[in-house]
Parts: sequence; structure tokens; C-alpha cells
Amino acid sequence: MLVPVVVEVTLRSGIADPEGATIERALPALGFTGVSAVRAGKLFQFTVEAETEVAALAQATALAQRLLSNPVIEDATARVAVTPHS
Amino acid sequence: MLVPVVVEVTLRSGIADPEGATIERALPALGFTGVSAVRAGKLFQFTVEAETEVAALAQATALAQRLLSNPVIEDATARVAVTPHS
Repeated sequence: MLVPVVVEVTLRSGIADPEGATIERALPALGFTGVSAVRAGKLFQFTVEAETEVAALAQATALAQRLLSNPVIEDATARVAVTPHS
Repeated sequence: MLVPVVVEVTLRSGIADPEGATIERALPALGFTGVSAVRAGKLFQFTVEAETEVAALAQATALAQRLLSNPVIEDATARVAVTPHS
């Protein structure tokens, strides 16, 4: 079966996030107030061919941790997508 | 109330994704087979101060479309995070 998967890669808490900080500083000038704690991360969508959803998720998790993220500074989580990727 | 929000920014279908294509080409050499349709995107996490979750989500959606994405080539979706951001 073809399983659509989403991987979210986010910086670990405590790791400086200059991109998020820059966005946060820009917001008031653009009329957005009350927004805080902006953190930027990465998103990957792909399809895994596997026997079961569990097997697909295991492969996606391994891939996320070995290839798509730097485990020293980032957390990676994989989940089965609710809807197929467009 | 403080509402934790996640914004996902993905390339529209049909828009070339060199980052995703490069990842996909690298996978077989690293032992991952059966992975296809890799697309790379961006993820933003932030907290919105608003009266209700609906108001927070409306503000996050406006922010996502005006500041965090390029609507010509990208889709942006905002959702309330299930768990507070770490």
C-alpha cells in the first residue's frame, strides 16, 4: 500500500532560532499584534510503499531522523497524513 | 487566551521542488526504497493571543498568507496545535 506521510522537523527548545525571531520582530509593523514564540521549522511530505501503515511510519521515522534532521539541534516527528498529498 | 498555532507552507502542485527531488534521489543510496513524491515545505509554530480559538486561527491564517508564504507558488494552512509548543 502507498502511505502518505508528513515529517515535521523543529528546532529543539533552547536552540536559537534567528528566522523565527526575525519574523516575530517584523509582525507589529505589519499590523499583527499578540503573536509570540515564533519558531521556524521544516516540513516534508512523501509517500512510502509498505505492507502496513505501521511499517510505513517506522520507515518514515528512521528516514526523518537519519536524513531529514540534525538530531543534535532538531526534533523530527513522522505521522500518516490524513489526506493524500496533492 | 494564548492559542498555540501551527502553519504549514507547501509548494502548490505543479511547482518544481528541487529540494524534494534531491532528497528523493539520495534515498536509495542510503538504503531507503519505496519512497516517492518527496516535497519539501516550511513549518511555523507560534502563539496567538486572542479572545477565542476561532479568532486566533483567523489571525494566524491571515499572517500565513500575507507574511509566511508566497501565494503565487505556495499554499499555507493554519491549525490550532494539539499540544502547547515546547
